[in-house]
Amino acid sequence: MNDSHSYAETAEQHIPALRRTRIEPKRLVRVLPDEQAFQGWRTEHGGTIDAFASGDYAKGDSIVLDFGIHCVGYLTVRIGAAVGPADAPVRLKLIFGEMPCEIGEDFDSYDGSLSRAWLQEEIVNLDTVPGTYTLPRRYTFRYLRIVVLEPSRKFRITFPDIYVTHVTSGDPGRVEPLPESLPADLREMDRIAVKTLEDCMQTVFEDGPKRDRRLWLGDLRLQALASCRTFGSHSLVKRCLYLFAGLRLEGGKVPACVYEKPEPHPDDIYLYDYALFFAAALHDYYRETGDGQTLAELYPVACDQIRIGLERLDERGIVQDDETWYCFTDWRDELNKQASAQAVLIYCMKRALALARALNRNDDCNWLETEIERASKAALAELWRADAGFFVSGAEEQVSWASQIWMALAGVLDPVETTALMDRLFERPPGVGMTTPYMHHHLIEALFECGRRERAIAEMRRYWGGMMADGADTFWELYDPADKLSSPYGSNLVNSYCHAWSCTPAYFIRTYLI
Amino acid sequence: MNDSHSYAETAEQHIPALRRTRIEPKRLVRVLPDEQAFQGWRTEHGGTIDAFASGDYAKGDSIVLDFGIHCVGYLTVRIGAAVGPADAPVRLKLIFGEMPCEIGEDFDSYDGSLSRAWLQEEIVNLDTVPGTYTLPRRYTFRYLRIVVLEPSRKFRITFPDIYVTHVTSGDPGRVEPLPESLPADLREMDRIAVKTLEDCMQTVFEDGPKRDRRLWLGDLRLQALASCRTFGSHSLVKRCLYLFAGLRLEGGKVPACVYEKPEPHPDDIYLYDYALFFAAALHDYYRETGDGQTLAELYPVACDQIRIGLERLDERGIVQDDETWYCFTDWRDELNKQASAQAVLIYCMKRALALARALNRNDDCNWLETEIERASKAALAELWRADAGFFVSGAEEQVSWASQIWMALAGVLDPVETTALMDRLFERPPGVGMTTPYMHHHLIEALFECGRRERAIAEMRRYWGGMMADGADTFWELYDPADKLSSPYGSNLVNSYCHAWSCTPAYFIRTYLI
Repeated sequence: MNDSHSYAETAEQHIPALRRTRIEPKRLVRVLPDEQAFQGWRTEHGGTIDAFASGDYAKGDSIVLDFGIHCVGYLTVRIGAAVGPADAPVRLKLIFGEMPCEIGEDFDSYDGSLSRAWLQEEIVNLDTVPGTYTLPRRYTFRYLRIVVLEPSRKFRITFPDIYVTHVTSGDPGRVEPLPESLPADLREMDRIAVKTLEDCMQTVFEDGPKRDRRLWLGDLRLQALASCRTFGSHSLVKRCLYLFAGLRLEGGKVPACVYEKPEPHPDDIYLYDYALFFAAALHDYYRETGDGQTLAELYPVACDQIRIGLERLDERGIVQDDETWYCFTDWRDELNKQASAQAVLIYCMKRALALARALNRNDDCNWLETEIERASKAALAELWRADAGFFVSGAEEQVSWASQIWMALAGVLDPVETTALMDRLFERPPGVGMTTPYMHHHLIEALFECGRRERAIAEMRRYWGGMMADGADTFWELYDPADKLSSPYGSNLVNSYCHAWSCTPAYFIRTYLI
Repeated sequence: MNDSHSYAETAEQHIPALRRTRIEPKRLVRVLPDEQAFQGWRTEHGGTIDAFASGDYAKGDSIVLDFGIHCVGYLTVRIGAAVGPADAPVRLKLIFGEMPCEIGEDFDSYDGSLSRAWLQEEIVNLDTVPGTYTLPRRYTFRYLRIVVLEPSRKFRITFPDIYVTHVTSGDPGRVEPLPESLPADLREMDRIAVKTLEDCMQTVFEDGPKRDRRLWLGDLRLQALASCRTFGSHSLVKRCLYLFAGLRLEGGKVPACVYEKPEPHPDDIYLYDYALFFAAALHDYYRETGDGQTLAELYPVACDQIRIGLERLDERGIVQDDETWYCFTDWRDELNKQASAQAVLIYCMKRALALARALNRNDDCNWLETEIERASKAALAELWRADAGFFVSGAEEQVSWASQIWMALAGVLDPVETTALMDRLFERPPGVGMTTPYMHHHLIEALFECGRRERAIAEMRRYWGGMMADGADTFWELYDPADKLSSPYGSNLVNSYCHAWSCTPAYFIRTYLI
């Protein structure tokens, strides 16, 4: 089989069941501006849930509930009437926030580049009071602000019951506890990472359950790694791989992301690195499962991505650069992607080669060995600056963290030189740094792989530990310790604060530290 | 049986089925300010539905659909994506209007005394695009404004299908056509009146399907009259009478209105005239149906209302006046209700007497005859001013249209004097006039009953014909030809433009003119 329809059918056969858990709010909070607090907002205790449930509210009242934990699910609220019977609909504004900033700031002032519709705000009109309402949309939040816009003058409203039905396809019971001997902060980091992954595990591995709620190949690859060490959801990884295989773009290209609803369909975005990662993700899946049927069925798609990737090489054997968003690598405007794209190509060809060997595809083995050698030699010849000890990227010969890290992961230099390169990064850090946890994942992976275990742990503590110190319930899409309001979208309100590509501390801790 | 629970059970056994009809929009319109137009707004053709269905829309676009007819029901809209795939939720504002003013004016400027939640405005976030959405609430409208708040920059949205599922418990097939010999304007008036009634006929006779959507006794009495001549929904009248009987307030008082949801319950409003109308409505129901079992079961409740009403008489035998909203009569601040309340008491006692006779309750007959005589004599002795030829009301001896009309309906004077009183109203009109179609109904009824058929028709043409000239699709809650923005609630936006108590031209035309 190598037709999209059959792939899509296999994907649909592996839709997981969702587990549902009732979560009730833990307390009321006040959200207050505070220059010292993360992103300028802190919470303080604002009352008990008992007081909330027995109180009554009039037009203009505003309450913030703290559910005490990051939730992904469906809100149910029971509304009652006090003083008099309800003689008109109740109109409420509901604002759901993963973070205090979403509760503290006014969404009407939002001017980010992504749709404001991602900001979780509803205005609801409820006709029947008393009544119990379950909102139809799924929300991702820890905090919920309720603004009472309209009861009539005749009555006051009450909230005798409110809860969220949390959903995930991950089974926390399958996650092995960590040994007590592991330092407490790393166990806590693992707990938060596992929770991050759990909340992104729905009927696909979503990138972020608040935003974008879709399946990206770059996120999938990291989630699959973490899942193997925690929830063991191989079936969900398989489903996602088949979705990508079933939803290829023109010319057989794997899209950067796909949507599940109303029926599975691809976005029109093709990213050079993400498409190549299909081979890497399939490699990781096969290594973990030994599932030869899936390997045989999806291998042609993986090979196609390599073939398509190779078409971008110029006569020197170097990935052609351009000004478009052709390759992801990291969220960093000034970053030139040429060198990292070259490295990702090599990295993925090496993994495709392992698959070709497993399938005894000798022709493919020869082809891949040749291409790996060509691309690696070209990288050394054209991008490596032995005098500086760094790889350069693009016409401006940019030196960035990303280029070095990806060349290290691709193994273009020999192991001793690779370790030296990674050490050099810290001794003489390039000016073009890293933005996302996604890029930081590759830093950590490269450090572990070249034997720099202590530095890897230190960097995890600096970066993910920084999020913890800043109050993360789940790990974030973006984190720049030097600019805590940073966002690639023009507003930190729309950043995702539970983001799949940030979950890999669980993978590192469980792969390298126990 | 005389217990609330049994009454309520009988009411529940008569919940009617709703008929559902699909209604599609007929055209696009523009709503434009125009000082010459009713309430300052007119519509003009803005495009075809084909153009709308094949167009695509971006952030900031605003479209007004005209469904061409007054609808009560559930909106279904199919949303598609054009240009690119939808990569974010769609956020729309939907504004439903019975009248152009609701579409033309900004609800955010509303400052009426009733809850803004009655204004039909939704902000919806739709996650799945393409997708078909049926909104959970029922709306009452002819016009629908769609404001595109948020698609992302990546795509434009389309509306390939949109319709309303209109609901009513009235069966238009049961309405007899009028003879062609009847003047065309009266046939048109009847058509609009029947449509008004149809749209208020849900699982109770609602007062207005936009607002308040509940069962008021004053409205029920008029709807039942019109229903007998049109839809013949005796079962729905029965259900409503049993609901009132089953939901009495302390002391056995019938409430002025009741709610159906979440389960039937009374409002805490008691109105002197409305409670007494229970007897009148039961009388009308029995006259039309001969349903002796219902009469026997509900008669005690009707008698109780008379008994409670009599308790308000002072030592002179006159209804005690006060400054509270104890009696409805009409929406008119300066109107004194004493005389009309006295007349309603007499009017209803006469109907209770007819019921007592039908049941051979001789003791009750004697009691009612005595009380009718006492109240009528007191009215003549204390409220009638023979020199002026009018009844007065309250300590200030106010002379109003309402007082004369109700005294005429109560038959306090003899028939010749009553006719003279009604003629005098037009020869020397009192300064305190009428506001509502509800009060105008009683004017017309009094004119027909005293033989002033031509004047009755002329007044119907002046008043309901005025609404027709002003563009009524259904007849309105309020209509003051001299002040077309008038509202008892501080804003004409919240007035109901399909209101049960305005449906009685169908009753008059079908009772007195054919």
